[in-house]
Amino acid sequence: MGEFELIRRYFLRGASSPGAGGGSGADAADGGTGAGAVVLGIGDDCALLQPPEPGQLLAVSSDMLIEGRHFFAGTEPAAIGHKALAVNLSDLAAMGAQPLGFTLAIALPAIDENWLRGFCGGMFSLAARYRCPLVGGDTTRGPLAISITVMGQVPAAQALRRDRAQPGDEVWVSGPLGGASLAVEWRRQGITGSGPHESAARRLDWPEPRLELGQQLRGIARAAIDLSDGLAGDLRHVLAASSGALELCAELTAEDIPVDPCLAHLPATQALSQALSGGDDYELLFTALPQDHQAIRALCPTARMIGRIRVGSGILLTGRDGKTAPVEATGFDHFSG
Amino acid sequence: MGEFELIRRYFLRGASSPGAGGGSGADAADGGTGAGAVVLGIGDDCALLQPPEPGQLLAVSSDMLIEGRHFFAGTEPAAIGHKALAVNLSDLAAMGAQPLGFTLAIALPAIDENWLRGFCGGMFSLAARYRCPLVGGDTTRGPLAISITVMGQVPAAQALRRDRAQPGDEVWVSGPLGGASLAVEWRRQGITGSGPHESAARRLDWPEPRLELGQQLRGIARAAIDLSDGLAGDLRHVLAASSGALELCAELTAEDIPVDPCLAHLPATQALSQALSGGDDYELLFTALPQDHQAIRALCPTARMIGRIRVGSGILLTGRDGKTAPVEATGFDHFSG
Repeated sequence: MGEFELIRRYFLRGASSPGAGGGSGADAADGGTGAGAVVLGIGDDCALLQPPEPGQLLAVSSDMLIEGRHFFAGTEPAAIGHKALAVNLSDLAAMGAQPLGFTLAIALPAIDENWLRGFCGGMFSLAARYRCPLVGGDTTRGPLAISITVMGQVPAAQALRRDRAQPGDEVWVSGPLGGASLAVEWRRQGITGSGPHESAARRLDWPEPRLELGQQLRGIARAAIDLSDGLAGDLRHVLAASSGALELCAELTAEDIPVDPCLAHLPATQALSQALSGGDDYELLFTALPQDHQAIRALCPTARMIGRIRVGSGILLTGRDGKTAPVEATGFDHFSG
Repeated sequence: MGEFELIRRYFLRGASSPGAGGGSGADAADGGTGAGAVVLGIGDDCALLQPPEPGQLLAVSSDMLIEGRHFFAGTEPAAIGHKALAVNLSDLAAMGAQPLGFTLAIALPAIDENWLRGFCGGMFSLAARYRCPLVGGDTTRGPLAISITVMGQVPAAQALRRDRAQPGDEVWVSGPLGGASLAVEWRRQGITGSGPHESAARRLDWPEPRLELGQQLRGIARAAIDLSDGLAGDLRHVLAASSGALELCAELTAEDIPVDPCLAHLPATQALSQALSGGDDYELLFTALPQDHQAIRALCPTARMIGRIRVGSGILLTGRDGKTAPVEATGFDHFSG
């Protein structure tokens, strides 16, 4: 099987193909994946998309996943396909954007049809749920590398930027933390099991992009970011981006940080540390005015208010004992490890 | 140096950074690279771009370059940076689109500052010439892989698609062919030199995307594609895409095919074969009505009319001896070799 047959057999599914006849055929080309914006899909030099609606901006993000770094060799291919798209959709979620489509550039060591079937199944299933069609890309031979670029639209004035936190804002996370990084530890040690092990593995392999929530937070959240590097690291990104003439800090309350239930077997301090520093959970971290507290609780039952933005420096954590100390944990860095 | 310092030191140059203050700061953030469309550049979850102008479509293309497959190990890093962007811009050229910006996802085996300086120099120099700013991306550790997604805009009715060739169209190429693939052969054999060797190496390492020509051909070319896989292979893509109820063929005249001067030392038949089947030249192949012949010659002095589209099958070549024979050569396929 050659490159073109590979594309035809695996990647045209869930994508709209050319020849549908200009803009008029776009609806017909929509295979349930939301290809309404796609005028010309896979098969030409470029894809052609209807631009964002008037008053909206084009939101764009690229993430690359490498075997052995972003996922373990031997990970279920459907999970790899899901996660490669999910981490990109999570970036759209963190801007409050709605997906328009994505491109996939993939290097494969060889053509393994079972692997491709699984990978495409996971990827296209997520794409269909969020109406985000594959519009183009590139396939080549090489060490397994998956690079996705996702495009979306967001009303110009309502994009959720990370540089808009202000003193007095409440700090929120959209769901439980620490599960994905615990799964990494367990997998490194070869530990498997049911219950919390399955639950943690699901957090790591099948992250759910918080797209609906991101869009619901337009006009409510002041600053937002998705939790890929870990709560402490990503919160530092928000503080650094939002600090101007005034340097900002975050005061967090330990007992309010939502620790993933699969960490229940750990001593409380260790579980909290994992929730603070562990990456890959893909929940949203956002700040908002206190007056929007109830609205946010109503929007997102799993969201927890974990602290406040103040003038100051760093991240301060108040424990159950009432003592406050700076958080030293940093986020994940691909070149420091 | 960590991931964030690496991004700050190398990739913020030639890119517009966030914090420029909504749309109003976009001009100030334009470092000579045409960031006028960029509302929010590198540093947030997504880049935010002004959408294409009214009546225009968004054109998107992704290409991935792998060391040892798309470029030789040891290639000058500036050339790698140039080519990684050039092959993507060439896809915009082949649609008649004007660049808006690009994302870069790159896996690096290690941080080599000399390499990064060269790579970014080559990439950003080309980006500045075509006013195509870097708007976002991803850096990670892994076997060297470079994945670029480029975005552009093109008037909806004037996009140069590959599926619009019709019987009677003249077939054109925008410049000399065969040089890049000859450079690949010479490099494999370790042959270096001045004159034709330098000229061929330049074709391979520093391809020039035909962006102005692509935009000038709006409303003139009927079908277009960029020559990445080779003339015969890419012409076959045009014929396949354009064939409907009528199957189309191309009748080419051997003496009209512009053979790169660096092939002058080869026997005529071998040089012609290289021009027909060698890839990586990144000239444009397009078809147009005979009535536009003079207009095209005036637009592009290096363009050559090489044949005609007819009803039929395959590619037929008429040699200097007046004999006509089918062309068997196919284009490059990453998984067939």
